[in-house]
Amino acid sequence: MTSEEGLFVTFEGIDGSGKSTQARLLAEALIAAGHDPLLTREPGGSPGAEEIRRLLVEGPPERWSAETEILLFTAARRDHLEKTIAPALAAGKIVISDRFVDSTRVYQGAVRGALRAMVDELHCRMIGREADITLVIDMQADAALSRGLARRSGEDRFEDFGGAFQQRLRQGFLDLAAEFPARCHVVEGARPVQDVARQVWSILERSA
Amino acid sequence: MTSEEGLFVTFEGIDGSGKSTQARLLAEALIAAGHDPLLTREPGGSPGAEEIRRLLVEGPPERWSAETEILLFTAARRDHLEKTIAPALAAGKIVISDRFVDSTRVYQGAVRGALRAMVDELHCRMIGREADITLVIDMQADAALSRGLARRSGEDRFEDFGGAFQQRLRQGFLDLAAEFPARCHVVEGARPVQDVARQVWSILERSA
Repeated sequence: MTSEEGLFVTFEGIDGSGKSTQARLLAEALIAAGHDPLLTREPGGSPGAEEIRRLLVEGPPERWSAETEILLFTAARRDHLEKTIAPALAAGKIVISDRFVDSTRVYQGAVRGALRAMVDELHCRMIGREADITLVIDMQADAALSRGLARRSGEDRFEDFGGAFQQRLRQGFLDLAAEFPARCHVVEGARPVQDVARQVWSILERSA
Repeated sequence: MTSEEGLFVTFEGIDGSGKSTQARLLAEALIAAGHDPLLTREPGGSPGAEEIRRLLVEGPPERWSAETEILLFTAARRDHLEKTIAPALAAGKIVISDRFVDSTRVYQGAVRGALRAMVDELHCRMIGREADITLVIDMQADAALSRGLARRSGEDRFEDFGGAFQQRLRQGFLDLAAEFPARCHVVEGARPVQDVARQVWSILERSA
């Protein structure tokens, strides 16, 4: 990271882990501290990518193969990077994204199909950017699943793969954090929301 | 092509060249000759790919970068191949597709951006199948453009790039045919429809 470029922070974890809440709380804390952060999310984060998101998160689990999913997620990410993330980083902002490529590595690369090499090749060729800091919000899969489904958002396609799938996802995120220790920090999510937020803040203070 | 697998025929060319009409006439002639061909098209050709098609062919020209387009076309093609083309070929059918990867090679790889290597890498990694026979229906760009726009289909995003773009596309298809002479046949499209259809039929008789 050059002094002119902003900081790229991502939150990762299974649905229901509280990562979206933590991303929002971090943005609010940064605003309170005088920063002008950009809070965004994947899939989505730009008008085009949000349209691709609808294709991915709605409908039955068998709607797309893991290979087609990887292509759609990478297409959405490319648009998100071009239209939203890269301009904000170039303007020196702190960008906070609720999910980024680590989710594709875990969901499609390690769990749905053994396609991690494909995910990494496409990422290297078409995106070429990793987060500076990644917060992995960890929680037991059954607790997170019941929280995620309780929202009944209509975007339940991935939750509908079932509980054993969520358990493998949780392990996939923990393995990923171990693979990239320089940027990844595992945060225990099954605690009061403000306690989790304080730990996230202290990790950012130490890392940024 | 093994004796068990069907034949994969693609039609390529600029919008308004008459390739869709010729694809339909070939399917009708094959049915009259006792075959059971599958007529399909790109982008689209499967329920999921048709949804991706809407993202690609509607809206303003600057909606997507050439890189994001390549990813979306490849995602649609992967779904089309898995759900429609591969099962029909495995059943021994003749599959006729109105556009396939050659369109991506020309539109995104040779004309909109100099991204041909990217198109070929993604195709090799994610699709891995070429047509057995490709009919390139050739026509002067201005004549084809006026025919294409006269349809007012609401799917005019690529026509809206303008006439000089269409001229470069035409040349791109001719260059591609020269690059793959074993499978590509250039057919002059500015003739009576039935004359063009007879030439297409004779090429198929010689090649299949």
